[in-house]
Amino acid sequence: MITISAFRWVPPFAQGIVRDLRVRWALEEAGIPYRTHLLEQGEQGTAAYRQMQPFGQVPYLQDGDFVMFESGAIVLHIADRSPALAPSDPQARLRMHTWLIAALNSVEPAIQNLTAIDLFHADEAWAKARRPAAEAFAVSRLESLAAWLDGRDYLSDDRFTAADLMMTTVLRFPRQTDLVTSNPVLDAYVRRCEARPAFQRALAAQMATYQEAEAVQAVA
Amino acid sequence: MITISAFRWVPPFAQGIVRDLRVRWALEEAGIPYRTHLLEQGEQGTAAYRQMQPFGQVPYLQDGDFVMFESGAIVLHIADRSPALAPSDPQARLRMHTWLIAALNSVEPAIQNLTAIDLFHADEAWAKARRPAAEAFAVSRLESLAAWLDGRDYLSDDRFTAADLMMTTVLRFPRQTDLVTSNPVLDAYVRRCEARPAFQRALAAQMATYQEAEAVQAVA
Repeated sequence: MITISAFRWVPPFAQGIVRDLRVRWALEEAGIPYRTHLLEQGEQGTAAYRQMQPFGQVPYLQDGDFVMFESGAIVLHIADRSPALAPSDPQARLRMHTWLIAALNSVEPAIQNLTAIDLFHADEAWAKARRPAAEAFAVSRLESLAAWLDGRDYLSDDRFTAADLMMTTVLRFPRQTDLVTSNPVLDAYVRRCEARPAFQRALAAQMATYQEAEAVQAVA
Repeated sequence: MITISAFRWVPPFAQGIVRDLRVRWALEEAGIPYRTHLLEQGEQGTAAYRQMQPFGQVPYLQDGDFVMFESGAIVLHIADRSPALAPSDPQARLRMHTWLIAALNSVEPAIQNLTAIDLFHADEAWAKARRPAAEAFAVSRLESLAAWLDGRDYLSDDRFTAADLMMTTVLRFPRQTDLVTSNPVLDAYVRRCEARPAFQRALAAQMATYQEAEAVQAVA
């Protein structure tokens, strides 16, 4: 059975957005069962873990002797083998690849930059000075995305694909702002994708892990 | 014939690192001829261009009626069809995908954040305050990468793949620092990949375009 790594607990600001969510969602869409390897405190820094995930992040995916990492690569791998996540037409598959990587490389960095300012540095002077331009850059990427999605339900080929899965998880990051929810096109798009039963199961599974850890802590 | 979009000219700080270089290099490795669509001033903001590249970036790739964008997706597309860029073993291909996306999503954002500070904001107070932590984060990612590459010539499966192509282009970004060149493992790795004739041809082609534009400007 496939094993993915995940954190046993993260602070509330990160709950529901840690990147194992992407892989859980893809596996749920594909109907592939999995189990989790929950990291003990500090485990991601150990040499043994770095052999599986050289940057000390989650998740990795292990399937027998085979190991791979990077949520983007894992989702692409699952998608390329699941009709639920990718069309069969070769050109349509390439459009799915295009948008999946656009989510990772053209949208996520702009959003993560702003989110890091808000979550980790909001009270620092440099962050207050930097934030307007960081927000403007994130907004410019979101506006480009909204312009593309206007009149479309999904990023490509009139159907939900792994690219929509990936973009939705990216658009969930800036929850501390109304940049996504105040845009009618993006808000409807995220709601459309999040309404999928597979997403709901993936989110519930990630949150259940954290709630279990909190319950254990509460009685300790 | 394949057409890729590129800028007719960029300022010196960007020459040799604009993302069409990645696609030129992949096409050179694969032995696929191409031509360029050089953008006129402001063209990337037009509605026509946004139909090809919704974020107004370079490059797109056009092959007859087919269009795709995102340098990462384009390189992956070329690699999946070229033995020069990818092994044939399915698991080795997935390791190539893993490292290609690690370059785009785990290494590039940290490096780009630091590079943006240095190139565009060096004299601003917020940038001076922010830079040490931005550098520390970039260094942590580079150290993780160097730890993996120590004792290896390439990222995976003892051979050059599209993942090395992508990582090398990422490691070329922080040229304003010695973060890469001062690390013996990373410096040797970049030199090893840049020594490939296909890289040299790709770089020469990108630079020739800018030099031609400068020559035209000089006589205008």
